[in-house]
Amino acid sequence: MTTEKLISEIKKKQSFLCIGLDVDLNKIPKYLLKEEDPIFAFNKAIIDATHHLCVAYKPNTAFYEAYGIKGWKALEKTIKYLNEKHPEIFTIADAKRGDIGNTSTMYAKAFFEDLAFDSVTVAPYMGKDSVEPFLAFKDKHTILLALTSNQGAFDFQTKTIDDKEVYKHVLETSKSWNDANRLMYVVGATKAEYLADIRQIIPDSFLLVPGVGAQGGNLHDVCKYGMNDSVGLLINSSRGIIYASNTEDFAEASATKASELQQEMALELANYFGN
Amino acid sequence: MTTEKLISEIKKKQSFLCIGLDVDLNKIPKYLLKEEDPIFAFNKAIIDATHHLCVAYKPNTAFYEAYGIKGWKALEKTIKYLNEKHPEIFTIADAKRGDIGNTSTMYAKAFFEDLAFDSVTVAPYMGKDSVEPFLAFKDKHTILLALTSNQGAFDFQTKTIDDKEVYKHVLETSKSWNDANRLMYVVGATKAEYLADIRQIIPDSFLLVPGVGAQGGNLHDVCKYGMNDSVGLLINSSRGIIYASNTEDFAEASATKASELQQEMALELANYFGN
Repeated sequence: MTTEKLISEIKKKQSFLCIGLDVDLNKIPKYLLKEEDPIFAFNKAIIDATHHLCVAYKPNTAFYEAYGIKGWKALEKTIKYLNEKHPEIFTIADAKRGDIGNTSTMYAKAFFEDLAFDSVTVAPYMGKDSVEPFLAFKDKHTILLALTSNQGAFDFQTKTIDDKEVYKHVLETSKSWNDANRLMYVVGATKAEYLADIRQIIPDSFLLVPGVGAQGGNLHDVCKYGMNDSVGLLINSSRGIIYASNTEDFAEASATKASELQQEMALELANYFGN
Repeated sequence: MTTEKLISEIKKKQSFLCIGLDVDLNKIPKYLLKEEDPIFAFNKAIIDATHHLCVAYKPNTAFYEAYGIKGWKALEKTIKYLNEKHPEIFTIADAKRGDIGNTSTMYAKAFFEDLAFDSVTVAPYMGKDSVEPFLAFKDKHTILLALTSNQGAFDFQTKTIDDKEVYKHVLETSKSWNDANRLMYVVGATKAEYLADIRQIIPDSFLLVPGVGAQGGNLHDVCKYGMNDSVGLLINSSRGIIYASNTEDFAEASATKASELQQEMALELANYFGN
């Protein structure tokens, strides 16, 4: 998907919501466990109920790998369902991969070709030649970890090299890589004011923001410091939406939560772009 | 597997060789493509021919994911074959995972429980709470990326924070984490003299060293600077061994290459420990 198409979907739906499909069989409604593929059955119900309220879905690969082949089949079915039924949706493989060049190429093939995701999250630790193989794919997007939303972000990401935090070096350095126009960044919302600094370095890039809601971030502050003239934000919510209920009304309950966030987002868009 | 068992296998086999099972269907002998599962057929032949010469095998997950479900089935069969036929072999899932706490737990389950690997490689960028879920597993080992062997290692890993390189901060900080006695480290062999500094920080930990041979490292120098009283080294070779030939003698050719490295390693062990 092109960035232009993503922006146009955001404007149309008045939403920059991304829903994280992190399916834990211990948390989904019990009666779904009788289904042949409970993970896919759960995802399909969530997608059917919420696709008009969000612009992106983000399965985290860990939750699928934990179930082995069965999990990978569910991941494959989920992305296939999204691509066939909702080609207007931006899809993110939250995989946090990254390896030496020829190996990263294999990962890029896995997620961009075999599974046909629009984007994949990538860890920056191994540097340029571990990321560029992902950037080589046209109309695909690489979402580089910059500042994550967990406590461990303070172990290395916020340490300073020459008076500048490691995550800012990641932003500045990666800007110069080949096809960097295909880069987006993961930026945690736990400290929204960091976004002002980040926007100085990468004014135009899309940011994937986890950690609004459950992890403590505030939607309004994220928009205040992070929104740009192309919107430039995808805000993710996983557990807060998909586990809104664990009875038979779980899909409707997820739609209610997604709708609340969509309405807040519509207000923020009106604030920034006018009515 | 316990570390003691690994050390005793090294002493018995006079080898600290790890063979990387990075199977690319474009590089294996053409006639294997007729097999029902060419990737597993290739791995099985390599394992049958080399298991007495090495102490560890390391499939890189990227090469399996690139082939989708078929690839994951081959990975599952490979680890099952190793665990059943050669329980004395130390197995490494070269996956370079890492995510927020509850998600890392899912990855740990995928590799330690579902696939039953002895160890997994993990990226440090997201800090303590992204790594500790892996460390919680008894008799399992977490191999943390410190200094990798690729050019991109110089983008962030060797930059200095308070006059100390980022990868040294990774070594020092991770030493204090819960169950850090289950930590090993990936340290590239491209600059063997770095190993002297590294041994100052982590004298006792095992190091997984890629990049000997194809990537330019020198076995003798790695041993000179990296070996400790528990050996403390696993040296990986992938392409140099598994693609030694791509005709019908490929397994024998891989054994010849592995044997050459094993003999060099036996000399290094004799050098260090006496005969």
